[in-house]
Amino acid sequence: MKVVITGAAGFLGSRLADALLKPNSELCVTELVLVDTILPPSRKDPRVITLALDITTPEAARKLVDTDTDVLFHLAAVVSGHAEEDFDLGMKVNFNATRSLLEAARHRATKLRFVFTSTVGVFGGDLPPIITDQTAATPQNSYGIAKAMSELLINDYSRRGFVDGRVVRLPTVSIRAGTANRAVTSFASGIIREPLNGEVAICPVPPDQELWLSSPGSVVYNLIHAATLLSSELEKWRVINLPGISVTVRKMISSLCEVSGSKVAKLVRYEHDETISAMVGSFPSRFDNSRALRLGFRVDSNFTDVIRSYILEDLKQVSFGF
Amino acid sequence: MKVVITGAAGFLGSRLADALLKPNSELCVTELVLVDTILPPSRKDPRVITLALDITTPEAARKLVDTDTDVLFHLAAVVSGHAEEDFDLGMKVNFNATRSLLEAARHRATKLRFVFTSTVGVFGGDLPPIITDQTAATPQNSYGIAKAMSELLINDYSRRGFVDGRVVRLPTVSIRAGTANRAVTSFASGIIREPLNGEVAICPVPPDQELWLSSPGSVVYNLIHAATLLSSELEKWRVINLPGISVTVRKMISSLCEVSGSKVAKLVRYEHDETISAMVGSFPSRFDNSRALRLGFRVDSNFTDVIRSYILEDLKQVSFGF
Repeated sequence: MKVVITGAAGFLGSRLADALLKPNSELCVTELVLVDTILPPSRKDPRVITLALDITTPEAARKLVDTDTDVLFHLAAVVSGHAEEDFDLGMKVNFNATRSLLEAARHRATKLRFVFTSTVGVFGGDLPPIITDQTAATPQNSYGIAKAMSELLINDYSRRGFVDGRVVRLPTVSIRAGTANRAVTSFASGIIREPLNGEVAICPVPPDQELWLSSPGSVVYNLIHAATLLSSELEKWRVINLPGISVTVRKMISSLCEVSGSKVAKLVRYEHDETISAMVGSFPSRFDNSRALRLGFRVDSNFTDVIRSYILEDLKQVSFGF
Repeated sequence: MKVVITGAAGFLGSRLADALLKPNSELCVTELVLVDTILPPSRKDPRVITLALDITTPEAARKLVDTDTDVLFHLAAVVSGHAEEDFDLGMKVNFNATRSLLEAARHRATKLRFVFTSTVGVFGGDLPPIITDQTAATPQNSYGIAKAMSELLINDYSRRGFVDGRVVRLPTVSIRAGTANRAVTSFASGIIREPLNGEVAICPVPPDQELWLSSPGSVVYNLIHAATLLSSELEKWRVINLPGISVTVRKMISSLCEVSGSKVAKLVRYEHDETISAMVGSFPSRFDNSRALRLGFRVDSNFTDVIRSYILEDLKQVSFGF
């Protein structure tokens, strides 16, 4: 099966590629095309092809979607804070490029399983206490708007048989390894990652701020699972709120304290940022996981275990110079 | 105040123009630009300018949106049945053109009151028994998809201060004067209009099919009302489900019988059409009117009165050769 990943040089794209190349992967990959604006790191696997490509150029979609492409994981995006700063770039990457890829699929690969990563940032404004898959998407940020528009388009392309789309709305991913990105929720990884490296971390939101979280491991598992679902299981709407756990910043730091001691946890400092707090405050933090769990998606047990997995899987790699 | 209407040669655009030119109009119009693909009928009023223009051309938006444009009623659309038949044309007119107009406003008239007509066709699939403004838009037709995408964009442009947008979701409009259009709900006017003219009308859906209706008079009043609302009244989401009444086809025909006698009502014949029935059946027919009424929008009392108004206002015009 030929699989393409856009945004493959990014944190999730990279993890996803590694997971797909494992011998026990749920998808049987025979060719894996990794695409990003910068050349994704190559892997010692003959199935892998890497490509540096600007997906907003007219020829990009044609290069990526071929009659023999079976699955496209479309992860490339301008993240929330960046899209808020640069409206035009955000729309171009987060919406126009998605549209081009769908058009390419329509004309060349209607059976393509088009897996799209959307966001819980499609929710905002006046919301019910618990979000379900039937809650209206009323984003209060341009990133969420572009993602919600893409969701609609993917649904219509799927209904009309132009493509076989699947949309998963990602919770905030914590703990991301590597460096901070320009997502407004970037601190949700930084306040754990940096202290574990002995560095000070700034938390721009109040301790009571609740977040809707998923570990990278669960998200990658769920992305692959989305590609394996039968389209009949998705029924009339192809958007799924991925399951997550609801955790306050205070609880995150107390979990860090529990795992690594108070000296480490004290490296987190609160420095209020009005813009970030307002945007993060508009994202909902409590969801009904039931549909996603019924469809076989996975959820983390608790945040302390998420930290423990991070230390085991990521921190040791850093120490050993990976 | 300079006002522009796209789709001004159409039934609603034409009514709206007439209402805006009345001396007691809620908006004080000093210049009224009427635009459509065909030249809208001229009016004996020095304030009126008519223009034949394809709004999908690159220069159209620049021609329509100027620094001195105060209100734009963007009514032009490829209707439901037509958009379902011709996906590309539907997207071009119903989404791309809206986007171009918004871009023109952003760069030339950020205070522009951009009144956009959306549709209850944005709802579909698994729906709650009663729709509210918090119900998710999950359209099962390409017309609804393009309208829902436009709604999102208008909200973001408004939030960012690029334009002052207002979106009203129209119920099925009945009774439309004139001839049938290519909306799948076109029969909802035909089954009353044609018999009143002594002609046979075909009803393609079952008698139990319930519809969410508004008279043309109420819709035109509500369009103008939307333009007069303060943006603060719309709060964080600029989409309003216009109020309507819920009526079955059977009830519509019995109202016709009540007003015009059984001989007229017997001119309606049921001839089931699977495609139309499926699409119309996916539209919801019961809404919570409370937010719209709180905001000062108007609703019809019952369908019998709607027929009586039609006979008074439209039928006599036809008889007198208007």
